[in-house]
Amino acid sequence: MIVLGIDPGTALTGYGVVKGEPSMPPRLLECGVIRTRPRDSLASRLKEIHDGVRELIQRHKPDAMAIEDVFYARNVRTTIVLGHARGVILLAGAEAHLDIREFPPAEIKKAVVGTGAATKEQMQFMVARLLRLKTAPEPSDAADGVAAALTYVMSAGIPRISADAGSISFRR
Amino acid sequence: MIVLGIDPGTALTGYGVVKGEPSMPPRLLECGVIRTRPRDSLASRLKEIHDGVRELIQRHKPDAMAIEDVFYARNVRTTIVLGHARGVILLAGAEAHLDIREFPPAEIKKAVVGTGAATKEQMQFMVARLLRLKTAPEPSDAADGVAAALTYVMSAGIPRISADAGSISFRR
Repeated sequence: MIVLGIDPGTALTGYGVVKGEPSMPPRLLECGVIRTRPRDSLASRLKEIHDGVRELIQRHKPDAMAIEDVFYARNVRTTIVLGHARGVILLAGAEAHLDIREFPPAEIKKAVVGTGAATKEQMQFMVARLLRLKTAPEPSDAADGVAAALTYVMSAGIPRISADAGSISFRR
Repeated sequence: MIVLGIDPGTALTGYGVVKGEPSMPPRLLECGVIRTRPRDSLASRLKEIHDGVRELIQRHKPDAMAIEDVFYARNVRTTIVLGHARGVILLAGAEAHLDIREFPPAEIKKAVVGTGAATKEQMQFMVARLLRLKTAPEPSDAADGVAAALTYVMSAGIPRISADAGSISFRR
């Protein structure tokens, strides 16, 4: 099972592609960030994000997408713009018929570090450890994308108690 | 000049395609709504919206897209989900290299009715009048899409004092 994990953002969208096999430790296939230019129009930046995610899907042919749920930034406008980025990412997943699961940030932290209040450094440390990497993925956005993919892989055998794809529109 | 106007929504996305020619009254080519099923996942609904907008662009080959700016719904979650829908709509516009302009709702009302505090009924009445239609477009979401297109057409000759495409990410 190959999972594309995404940490959405308009400036930096982090991603990680993780392979999970029965009774084998998960393996990192690729991680990085999709970077957009602040000077470009929002529409162009959304196109770059969508193109970037689509290329990752074409390259790795993942079965599933794990994406960070919306976090409520203090700045409402920032959160809304983030919604635009998530929209084109979810679209890329739907176009490729991936199984999409959305995880709240605290759930990803809990799955990877064991506590929903984990720091950025703890997350990077545990991501590196779980995947037997010599150094943590950089920047932290990439590590967050990897963490989302790991959350999916590690919970794959467990009955779903978390968000199903689409629950964002209906959950209270 | 052909303009595709959009009133974004996750359940109902209203649209109107308006043709503007020098010294001729604007003409309505098509209007309607893209309807998505509440039971479907958010990702599927986003795909339907994106597909719907893309079909409209293929059919009418517009030069420009006019889209309602984010309104701040009282419910933050609703506003964020709306951001997802706007994201895939802007993407469709960018993919077709349209000139994209975003208008705040009050600016559209002011352009069409003459006051930013116009009611839904006043908007429908004036949209019908400006386009010489016998009846107002229904539902009001369709009329709102038409109104966005009209705002673009009517302001096309005037220097831009309003939002440029992309200003959403930088405006304070």
